[in-house]
Amino acid sequence: MKETDVLIIGGSAAGMVAALTGKSSWPAKKFTLVKMQKDAMVPCGIPYIFGTLGNVDENIMPVDSMMEQAGVESITGRVASLDTETKTATLESGEKVRYDRLVMATGSLPVKPSWLNGTNLKKVFVIPKDKSYLEEMNEEIRDCRKIVVVGAGFIGVELSDELKKNGREVTLVEKMPDILPMAFDKDLADRIEHFLDERGVKIMTGVGVKEIKGKDGAVHEVLLGNGEVLPADAVVLSMGYEPNSRLAREAGIPVDQNGFITVDEYMRTPVPGIFAVGDCAEKRDFVTRKKAPVMLASTACAEARIAGLNLYNLHVVKTFSGTIAIYSTAIGPYGFGTAGITEARAREEGFVVETGLFEGVDRHPGKLPDARKQIVKLVAARESGIIIGGGVIGGLSAGELTNLIGLAIENKMTAYNLLMSQIGTHPCLTASPAGYPLIKAAEMIVRKIRKNG
Amino acid sequence: MKETDVLIIGGSAAGMVAALTGKSSWPAKKFTLVKMQKDAMVPCGIPYIFGTLGNVDENIMPVDSMMEQAGVESITGRVASLDTETKTATLESGEKVRYDRLVMATGSLPVKPSWLNGTNLKKVFVIPKDKSYLEEMNEEIRDCRKIVVVGAGFIGVELSDELKKNGREVTLVEKMPDILPMAFDKDLADRIEHFLDERGVKIMTGVGVKEIKGKDGAVHEVLLGNGEVLPADAVVLSMGYEPNSRLAREAGIPVDQNGFITVDEYMRTPVPGIFAVGDCAEKRDFVTRKKAPVMLASTACAEARIAGLNLYNLHVVKTFSGTIAIYSTAIGPYGFGTAGITEARAREEGFVVETGLFEGVDRHPGKLPDARKQIVKLVAARESGIIIGGGVIGGLSAGELTNLIGLAIENKMTAYNLLMSQIGTHPCLTASPAGYPLIKAAEMIVRKIRKNG
Repeated sequence: MKETDVLIIGGSAAGMVAALTGKSSWPAKKFTLVKMQKDAMVPCGIPYIFGTLGNVDENIMPVDSMMEQAGVESITGRVASLDTETKTATLESGEKVRYDRLVMATGSLPVKPSWLNGTNLKKVFVIPKDKSYLEEMNEEIRDCRKIVVVGAGFIGVELSDELKKNGREVTLVEKMPDILPMAFDKDLADRIEHFLDERGVKIMTGVGVKEIKGKDGAVHEVLLGNGEVLPADAVVLSMGYEPNSRLAREAGIPVDQNGFITVDEYMRTPVPGIFAVGDCAEKRDFVTRKKAPVMLASTACAEARIAGLNLYNLHVVKTFSGTIAIYSTAIGPYGFGTAGITEARAREEGFVVETGLFEGVDRHPGKLPDARKQIVKLVAARESGIIIGGGVIGGLSAGELTNLIGLAIENKMTAYNLLMSQIGTHPCLTASPAGYPLIKAAEMIVRKIRKNG
Repeated sequence: MKETDVLIIGGSAAGMVAALTGKSSWPAKKFTLVKMQKDAMVPCGIPYIFGTLGNVDENIMPVDSMMEQAGVESITGRVASLDTETKTATLESGEKVRYDRLVMATGSLPVKPSWLNGTNLKKVFVIPKDKSYLEEMNEEIRDCRKIVVVGAGFIGVELSDELKKNGREVTLVEKMPDILPMAFDKDLADRIEHFLDERGVKIMTGVGVKEIKGKDGAVHEVLLGNGEVLPADAVVLSMGYEPNSRLAREAGIPVDQNGFITVDEYMRTPVPGIFAVGDCAEKRDFVTRKKAPVMLASTACAEARIAGLNLYNLHVVKTFSGTIAIYSTAIGPYGFGTAGITEARAREEGFVVETGLFEGVDRHPGKLPDARKQIVKLVAARESGIIIGGGVIGGLSAGELTNLIGLAIENKMTAYNLLMSQIGTHPCLTASPAGYPLIKAAEMIVRKIRKNG
């Protein structure tokens, strides 16, 4: 019987950060991390394996060496069962580990919808965070010319763009009226669609997939809801992920009806001494206060830090006060991102909002080389002016610009606060001080609030 | 006699933004802006005239058209005197303008130190925001091969790099031990010095200029404090700026001993109805609460917005609560920036601080093309953990990353808050979620606070 103070199950971003922050906070405790594969994938780097990076080996998080450096033992293996009474985990190898504190960081698994026929045909892929699967997939998809990607969330969009880079015919199918429907309002999604279109990805929105048809056991064509048939050498399903919480459920750790492990604001499950972080853990939206199925490595890391700091007592001032979904990505030289909730989602929830949308450039003067159009949309609650969401389209600084909106939301800044904010600007790095997009968008909101107030 | 409701004197960033925000806030009022030249220069674009942009015409702010679009009258001329009793401005042309509210946005002028001999020789330049001067200078400096730049603040550094682009021999002389001494601690300044050195700029620190010597009326050589002599076809003095407040002083508007026009947190001078914004207006440091000689277009714009919103009554919740100096710039593919105060400055002021310095990369995995080293240093007050300053070195997203530190300072975030912050990350746009530099630097501070607490 192995003994440890803290056992972490899962070796992706959430597990790793929980181990690192935990060990750094409680250096006298013994930490052990169990992970399924020797090497973990950089989660957000996965789509880039199929184009820019070229292979899985360029997309590795060196878990073992990072754990060794931090003084955390790491075991490659799979936990078969947990006994929360005796505080024991049993690995598939038969090995048993006694723990005092447990962190579940078991992540998520890609959805293969049961209503869709043909998902088990050869050359129908999903995108798990599994190195061997991705390695094999990268080989198998290499010579496929016609590829259909189903689902235009961030992974579907990134993957379509990457697969296209190697000269393939890529069709991206999305049943909602626009791509990235959870992340962007139509006004911004239209522009992003335009970038993707320019890169040669064929986009079909407002139409779902009805059936995947095979020939000799491999995929042959995709039948759409509108009767159209797309020939396909390969299909990639990016139709969402579900929390990987079977182990928790079987051990009697409470799980909600969507499969997320129940947690409080310190990331504690209802079972004493057991924490859950990352894709497998329940989340609440910062703005709507409703449960939110957000699965992002960045969110997972934030949760993992909270769990790590609070393993033995609750000594931090701040808890996890709700998930602010902050995503960003790039298509070629264009970056775009979103933080908080969209205008459409806000209205659905019953928020009375005002929005501001400013279009400028990300350099100044605009004649500098590399200057790109930059668009910022902000969504604020009308009465208080509090910023609840925003989107960015621009050059490659769009990621950090999106983080600025995230930080504004987290600090409950109002449009007035933003309007008065002090910002640094530089010709080669940002928009001009007189046309800084966050401030200009805030200004529009302030003007509308006054007019309607 | 011309009549207006609001008169703005100055057509650079501060004046323009005061006019735009003012008119948008008080649409029924008549706004008039007086500026010295038809076209204003994009202030932070000025160094780039001498390299990347090539000429002044690429660096123009279209003041007239922006004012026309906003419904603000704009006059090209110079105000000779003000009568604050009769509320009348007299232009050099003899024209008189009656106003109800006045905004002074007269900017700053480059310093030519009186102790330095030779500053009036031909081919000894300063960098004013004056289109005709810069146009002429760009012509005159074109064929100069050996150029000495005196003073390694942001403008000196940027200008040296730009002048070097055209194959010249550029020597940058700074009397302090490091370049950018007001903006960066030695640990970061050393690295920036290295970038500049790699680009071929010769840097001499810790040595001042003693005399500029001429031959036939034009500069010939520069004598340094250590006795060394630098041959020079041209010299550029970037030794600082002083507020352009003669007009205000002569009109009896109070001015402090450094020449800054006295203002309160609404940017009002002590004379009823008169505001001052931008380089000519007094500033107080957000952290030290002392007067601060910060002159930045971005700060000017923030002040101008406050004045514009408060011209007729004080209806905003937030006033200008102190200047957070936020600068950023680039040398080739490297961006760097600073917000708040440096560690050295903080210690000088008597703050008990802890710092965190994290080195990572600005992409993830680090093997992605264009990945650059990224360094973030944070400075926090030890007892409260409140972030009071920080510096960034990285790729071109360093500008917005610096703004994130600025927003953290403005929101009085602590290292704990930052450590728990939610951040979006993407392979092509940012560092990894597990190695996001702001959070990692905050983590180091938290660890030190605990150890020393």
